[in-house]
Amino acid sequence: MKRTELNELGEFGLINHLTKKFSLQNSSSLKGVGDDAAVIQYGTGKATVISTDMLVENVHFDLIYTPLKHLGYKAVVVNLSDIYAMNAIPRQILVSMSMSNKYSVEALDEIYEGMRLACEHYAVDLVGGDTTSSLKGMTLSLTAVGEQEPSKIVYRNGAKPGDLLCVSGNLGAAYVGLQLLEREKQVFLANPKMQPVFDGQDYLIGRLLKPEARKDIIEFFAEASLLPTSMIDISDGLSSEVLHICNQSKTGAIVEEMHVPVSELTYHKALDFNTDPIVCAMHGGEDYELLFTINAKDADKIKYNLDISIIGEIIPAADGIRLQTKAGRFHDLTAQGWKHY
Amino acid sequence: MKRTELNELGEFGLINHLTKKFSLQNSSSLKGVGDDAAVIQYGTGKATVISTDMLVENVHFDLIYTPLKHLGYKAVVVNLSDIYAMNAIPRQILVSMSMSNKYSVEALDEIYEGMRLACEHYAVDLVGGDTTSSLKGMTLSLTAVGEQEPSKIVYRNGAKPGDLLCVSGNLGAAYVGLQLLEREKQVFLANPKMQPVFDGQDYLIGRLLKPEARKDIIEFFAEASLLPTSMIDISDGLSSEVLHICNQSKTGAIVEEMHVPVSELTYHKALDFNTDPIVCAMHGGEDYELLFTINAKDADKIKYNLDISIIGEIIPAADGIRLQTKAGRFHDLTAQGWKHY
Repeated sequence: MKRTELNELGEFGLINHLTKKFSLQNSSSLKGVGDDAAVIQYGTGKATVISTDMLVENVHFDLIYTPLKHLGYKAVVVNLSDIYAMNAIPRQILVSMSMSNKYSVEALDEIYEGMRLACEHYAVDLVGGDTTSSLKGMTLSLTAVGEQEPSKIVYRNGAKPGDLLCVSGNLGAAYVGLQLLEREKQVFLANPKMQPVFDGQDYLIGRLLKPEARKDIIEFFAEASLLPTSMIDISDGLSSEVLHICNQSKTGAIVEEMHVPVSELTYHKALDFNTDPIVCAMHGGEDYELLFTINAKDADKIKYNLDISIIGEIIPAADGIRLQTKAGRFHDLTAQGWKHY
Repeated sequence: MKRTELNELGEFGLINHLTKKFSLQNSSSLKGVGDDAAVIQYGTGKATVISTDMLVENVHFDLIYTPLKHLGYKAVVVNLSDIYAMNAIPRQILVSMSMSNKYSVEALDEIYEGMRLACEHYAVDLVGGDTTSSLKGMTLSLTAVGEQEPSKIVYRNGAKPGDLLCVSGNLGAAYVGLQLLEREKQVFLANPKMQPVFDGQDYLIGRLLKPEARKDIIEFFAEASLLPTSMIDISDGLSSEVLHICNQSKTGAIVEEMHVPVSELTYHKALDFNTDPIVCAMHGGEDYELLFTINAKDADKIKYNLDISIIGEIIPAADGIRLQTKAGRFHDLTAQGWKHY
């Protein structure tokens, strides 16, 4: 029998491969696989937006430098981010968790305390889940549920040539924070008496260990009566997410390097690591910022929001998906996501 | 710092402990933790019923005797069973999965083919999920979503003294099927050339490896205009589920051993294993039958349904939760669930 290795397909290739034989049978399934979240509508009125994420110990988090409370907080936040990326409001979560008996009740208390703080901060209710044992390690699987009028849900596939490509906040900080923690982990493993030195790096490390979802941006859209034409959250890096929007919208895009927002701290620390800051922003991932497109006529609505950057433009598919460097050269955007296998 | 081991609390104690500090903040959260599924209602009309389950390799399934296609089928079915147990109709599922690179794409294809067959059989749509890697083993986390009018949702807490305690199908077969497979596994491990002999045991093994959810019973309730007063699905064994209904309804119960449905095959094979058939039925688990209570005045509605047994009665809490044996003696019911740690 033929054996195809998982890494031959990549994450998105694998998902497409596994789900292509499933067809939707229910009219209540407004949107299935392929966006940040699924959309379900029973009857009329508001639709239910639902998304699920799995976090595996030593694949998605390393308990050597991840405080358990932060882990719980982040597990909730990354799930809520998927709901916001649909322009919806998260209201509930379900938490499933498997763990070996190496964990004590007190350790789980820390994780749940982090989850509780996130639930409180985002006004979300824990309504269900499953708790079970594993032979080794911990796996967290969260499902977030939210609501929105069907006409206000923003998908990945609505971008049109001429739309402006926008991003919230700044990019690459979580990746540089990860490099900092990995370096200190190596120092610690070599000499457990060494204490890590993170002076002035709190911001970068915080972006990795305790990210926030951009609830405020979704609230801003509502206040400004602005409906993006497409949206996605940035979990795998800007480059990968631009490709998702373009592939699903059947468009091209130009991203201008000079407009990609990178904080000064990220910039200088990336250079310390001999890394190009723009590479951190394009491929680093885990920023949980929102990438979205708006009709050019809506540009005035975001003009005074300093937390939103216009980083480029949607162009026809035939013109490609490209990065324009500060030097004025063009490079094709490529995805570098999921390299777990 | 104090260290409390996970097994000191037990599964339900642990869930209570971890979730007790969470309070519901949203009026859309009609039902949170503590039933087969959560109930959410955005606006008016139908409510959304949602449940999640996690299956861990070598804790919940053993790939030595679990065909991958069956695993996929069962993973969906056990989730749907939770939705039916709310008297709701499942419509969608989300599937998250972590697996090591020991699995090939072809192995995952088998699992997803089983899931697809279950989706087709139960008219459910796969609408989302997450696929990721693990360092070792496989974990499946499924979320099922369904719909029902809020007034027709059946919770665990509605049983009243005088209600009849009913169960669908028969109990204990999956547990005896597991004993059969475990015995053959030992034979196989001792001598890999031995082929298992399962003549005439297909029913018992099928009940374990390819269970079905009782969609037909929910449809029968609708046709018969019968609304149970409480309901739960039997995943941990009849005894544990009766305790859940009684604890949440603040009642007692009498279960009459002579009316607990056990198939002849289960009965005889249990005796072959020197096991008491009633113990298999009370504590075996994984039957995925429905345990429910009905008002005594509705007894006529189930009279001609041969697939529903009246096994006892709800009594006041002060009278206890008891099993009446065939010999007429009374025993307190005890839970034996979750012994994974």
